Amino acid sequence: MAGKKLKLGALIHGVGGNISAWRHPEVPTDASVNFDFYKSQARKAEEGKFDLVFIADGLYINEKSIPHFLNRFEPLTILSALAAATEKIGLVGTLSTSYAEPFTVARQFGSLDHISGGRGGWNVVTSPLEGSALNYGREKHPSHDERYEIAEEFLQVARGLWDSWEDDAFVRNKESGVFFDPAKLHTLNHKGKHFSVQGPLNIARSKQGHPVVFQAGSSESGKSLAAKGADAVFTGHETLEEAKAFYRDVKRRTVEQGRSADDIVILPGIGPIIGRTEAEAERKYEEIAGLVSIENALNYLGRFFEHFDFSQFPLDEPFPDIGDLGSNSFRSGTDKIKKQAKEKGLTLRQVALQAATPRGEFFGTPEQVADRIQLWFEEGGADGFIIHSNIPSGLTDFVELVVPILQERGIYRTEYEADTLRGNLGLPIPANRHTLENVRG
Amino acid sequence: MAGKKLKLGALIHGVGGNISAWRHPEVPTDASVNFDFYKSQARKAEEGKFDLVFIADGLYINEKSIPHFLNRFEPLTILSALAAATEKIGLVGTLSTSYAEPFTVARQFGSLDHISGGRGGWNVVTSPLEGSALNYGREKHPSHDERYEIAEEFLQVARGLWDSWEDDAFVRNKESGVFFDPAKLHTLNHKGKHFSVQGPLNIARSKQGHPVVFQAGSSESGKSLAAKGADAVFTGHETLEEAKAFYRDVKRRTVEQGRSADDIVILPGIGPIIGRTEAEAERKYEEIAGLVSIENALNYLGRFFEHFDFSQFPLDEPFPDIGDLGSNSFRSGTDKIKKQAKEKGLTLRQVALQAATPRGEFFGTPEQVADRIQLWFEEGGADGFIIHSNIPSGLTDFVELVVPILQERGIYRTEYEADTLRGNLGLPIPANRHTLENVRG
Ligand SMILES: Cc1cc2nc3c(=O)[nH]c(=O)nc-3n(C[C@H](O)[C@H](O)[C@H](O)COP(=O)(O)O)c2cc1C
Ligand SMILES: Cc1cc2nc3c(=O)[nH]c(=O)nc-3n(C[C@H](O)[C@H](O)[C@H](O)COP(=O)(O)O)c2cc1C
Repeated sequence: MAGKKLKLGALIHGVGGNISAWRHPEVPTDASVNFDFYKSQARKAEEGKFDLVFIADGLYINEKSIPHFLNRFEPLTILSALAAATEKIGLVGTLSTSYAEPFTVARQFGSLDHISGGRGGWNVVTSPLEGSALNYGREKHPSHDERYEIAEEFLQVARGLWDSWEDDAFVRNKESGVFFDPAKLHTLNHKGKHFSVQGPLNIARSKQGHPVVFQAGSSESGKSLAAKGADAVFTGHETLEEAKAFYRDVKRRTVEQGRSADDIVILPGIGPIIGRTEAEAERKYEEIAGLVSIENALNYLGRFFEHFDFSQFPLDEPFPDIGDLGSNSFRSGTDKIKKQAKEKGLTLRQVALQAATPRGEFFGTPEQVADRIQLWFEEGGADGFIIHSNIPSGLTDFVELVVPILQERGIYRTEYEADTLRGNLGLPIPANRHTLENVRG
Repeated sequence: MAGKKLKLGALIHGVGGNISAWRHPEVPTDASVNFDFYKSQARKAEEGKFDLVFIADGLYINEKSIPHFLNRFEPLTILSALAAATEKIGLVGTLSTSYAEPFTVARQFGSLDHISGGRGGWNVVTSPLEGSALNYGREKHPSHDERYEIAEEFLQVARGLWDSWEDDAFVRNKESGVFFDPAKLHTLNHKGKHFSVQGPLNIARSKQGHPVVFQAGSSESGKSLAAKGADAVFTGHETLEEAKAFYRDVKRRTVEQGRSADDIVILPGIGPIIGRTEAEAERKYEEIAGLVSIENALNYLGRFFEHFDFSQFPLDEPFPDIGDLGSNSFRSGTDKIKKQAKEKGLTLRQVALQAATPRGEFFGTPEQVADRIQLWFEEGGADGFIIHSNIPSGLTDFVELVVPILQERGIYRTEYEADTLRGNLGLPIPANRHTLENVRG
């Protein structure tokens, strides 16, 4: 651990992941489609020397969706715009492998990676929402297992396409008229169960080789995909014990795949609530929590369970038995909600409010929050964190109040080490498979 | 025509559409993946008060492709980045309807349109290259007719999705907690021959209603698609007579569809070669033409005919009879090449060199070029032009030498009239179909 530095990301999500955050006085109500808002948040994160900004995504809405989901930027386009508005920070976005074509996706992330000079990243997800199928002419949303099987093949194809051109393929000799060396152009010819893609890709590798690949599912299949093919994991945990268990598990699986434990970076998402005093933090929390009605909270909870209508159950009785519901979408999350409700004997009201306005342990004064961060980092619960705040001042507070403490303690950078996302995350540049073959002979 | 102003676009294509332009001393050899290059070209066009920049695209390469196609930015990502680097100019990119999903495409262009504040545009093409199928797991490239049938339905779906939210749907009242009015959210429920898309789209309309829709095919089916659904046509003609016939034809078809002739803007592409004297223009042309070998020219010609190998024929005999070849890809272009070769009795060498280094009639001193532009504009051959130059100084010459003449003659703007692309092109904002229904009762 000696000398290893904490990594930080900022999830920018417009009017907030909280169902009612948009009502907070600080939040511009059009934030999710307001480029100036995204630009200022990204620049604030860059001021705090964050590794990356993160843009989440989804492929299905209905009138019960949370405000931020209803009307928001698409990740690749907003990240490309942010590439032009920032200099050093990484640009990571979600794109689902369940409803896309590898050739297009590999190109678009490859292009983002070039535009940004090696700062691109792709969060590979499988789309939790069943309704997504209806927007893509499909009869049925593929099952959880099948989605991960598709994701694995999709990612293999994308990495193959990214290696179409060896790094020294482009000779570009104006005298001789030789633009490229045909021996260094490779046609993929992938024929698999889910995809057939010939290639080659019409864009070369960037300075960082491949865009950084994130994975954000926490189920068994999710962890297995991460261990095989991801560079980073975006996850979520409520306790340090849980975080440590997950961390050990994913690192072990990664090593089992023949990779180094350092080849994968694990970043839990946290929503710190920071006050100059504990009382101020408490006030800030109440201010946000107070915006959420119980109807909204039930609604929000329902979303994780295929838009299930929880309002049919009594609020102050134990969380109802809803069987298998939710296991084909946000499985790791829905399993956890059910398990906790049972173990702690929570009522429906408690479960709903907790889901809609989680408070978490990253709470209090800047020192207290820095302490928790340092603890999780040093105890092996995380390589860093993705900060998500429902209100713009959440990120500002973190950058202005917590970052200086982390820097003073020597666990966080005071200047970017590299000009690529991979470089800052301390991840190796993947060698081009064909160059590697040639070297090995 | 009184008071109507000429429209201008700039095609930015990295190392050039000419197969050997990259060898010109002025061209940065990595221009096609060099963001600074794109930024400076876009800003130069904005300095010239151009309506738009245009990014072409393709979904298949092989080792015979021209240098610019081998390794280049993907349109949506580069346009989004340019949105952050420019203020007023429109941002139009090609995306093929033959290998994409309407939900994703409508979102991405919708998002570009919001990021840029209403400056987005989509050039709807159907992919001329047969090989595209191989990158998208398809057995066969759909036929010319089928591709256009798909394109028409695709565009209908996209326009339907763009109208998911009425313009006043987002109430965003922090007091009452009402974020949107459910009566103004509309689910498309499209079920057609090629696509089934439920909707609604998770992004609202921008300031200009819908992104500006371009169409770039010149065959019968292409013109018919334009008349039914496009806002603008990117075309190409060698003579004013040809341009006028095309112009009249497309305007007539548009009126037949119940639209106004002014609802569609027709912009031929031209590659002006400008010198301070005619001799200088001549020298500039020779400099570019001299970079092209006959092998390269044959290769380039072959590309339009499904990568046909023309080198098997004698160079100085009449252009060979190759039957139907090329009719399923760039049909309007290949038909024209065959027809001209026959009518003018051209040899293979002449046809190849003409294709690879066209000289055209927009040639000479700034006054001469301005004269031709004014003539085509005033005689009803064009509503404006898309300038494509193989070398960076081509755009600079045009902006610095020709634009002031056009401005002085009063046929071209000295300042942007509007802050949306639609506004500058003089196109109406399409009313939301649902709002319209309500108004009509
Ligand atoms: C921290 C975190 C972030 C996620 N972000 C997204 C996202 O942006 N878009 C999305 O569709 N799914 C997202 N997911 C959902 C997962 O990708 C996955 O589909 C879901 O968790 C079900 O898979 P699992 O059972 O493996 O967890 C996220 C999940 C987690 C834990
Ligand atoms: C001026 C012009 C520009 C075009 N730009 C593109 C392009 O960027 N990408 C593409 O795939 N096809 C492009 N095309 C091809 C057409 O979209 C179309 O596929 C081809 O011309 C065959 O259709 P047609 O027979 O209707 O002309 C262009 C065609 C023209 C005339």
